[in-house]
Amino acid sequence: MKKLTTRQILQRNRERSSPLGSHFILWLHNIRSLHNVGAAFRCADAFGVKELWLSGYTPVPPRPEITKTAIGAEEHVSWEKIEDEIGAITELKKNGYLVLGLEQTDSSVLIRDFDTKEKPVCLILGNEVTGIDKKILPHLDAAVEIPQFGMKHSLNVSVAAGVALYAFYDLLRDK
Amino acid sequence: MKKLTTRQILQRNRERSSPLGSHFILWLHNIRSLHNVGAAFRCADAFGVKELWLSGYTPVPPRPEITKTAIGAEEHVSWEKIEDEIGAITELKKNGYLVLGLEQTDSSVLIRDFDTKEKPVCLILGNEVTGIDKKILPHLDAAVEIPQFGMKHSLNVSVAAGVALYAFYDLLRDK
Repeated sequence: MKKLTTRQILQRNRERSSPLGSHFILWLHNIRSLHNVGAAFRCADAFGVKELWLSGYTPVPPRPEITKTAIGAEEHVSWEKIEDEIGAITELKKNGYLVLGLEQTDSSVLIRDFDTKEKPVCLILGNEVTGIDKKILPHLDAAVEIPQFGMKHSLNVSVAAGVALYAFYDLLRDK
Repeated sequence: MKKLTTRQILQRNRERSSPLGSHFILWLHNIRSLHNVGAAFRCADAFGVKELWLSGYTPVPPRPEITKTAIGAEEHVSWEKIEDEIGAITELKKNGYLVLGLEQTDSSVLIRDFDTKEKPVCLILGNEVTGIDKKILPHLDAAVEIPQFGMKHSLNVSVAAGVALYAFYDLLRDK
């Protein structure tokens, strides 16, 4: 067994097409940590999402701490700073998007059991401690969640972003 | 839509049983970052793995930086410090385990396409930059990988751990 070189890996990645590339926006609202934003950029790059949106007090590039964790991935990901969150959600819905939140609620479903009905998806992740902003919650089409079994009630935000992107990749790959 | 309280989430988690609980060991060898170890503890807790193994220069609890990222999850995860890695792999195989590495190699397969043949799994993750130690590589039963599409060739280690645990959860849930 031989490890692939970075060059071989990048060559292979270029030949692949992500099912999230034309269909999927990841949106971070009110994330505090530069590390989490950097790692989310790296996730967005790895899973080939269409766009990364940042809003509220989520820090945006250029910031050295984001670059450090993202190892420069922020230069390859198409990203946008959103000022009017509710306006943006209305616009997304007009354009046929499902606007989802990653949150454990009384009506949330596991990502793998979610029916995207062939619509493009925008997935919102909220603050590290308090989750999705209560001004955004009522505007979601639905909440989705990652199965958890632990004594702690959550994953780190960047880990949650990675798992959610993988789960949506897996869901859309099957369509 | 109402967010669940921490109490409701923990109550629900307790009623669930993870398919990784009796079957899955996560092993971190030569991981440098305390943050990555802390986040891996949090992942191991969230996905309910049987054990977390740490070896080489991977830092072990108690360390304040691990606790900070793990938000104390390291107190709920059964973990072990491994001194003799090759001896431990031999022992795992004797006990019927498949010993896998998370690595992009010339023969690696996507986790979701991997056939665990109903065997318990030990998944090894290697160093942040250089991946799995070359002294361990020849002893693996197989290498598995996470699908990637990016301009950067990898995910952050703790994100990779979370995605891999989720992917194995999903694989074993279907059995």
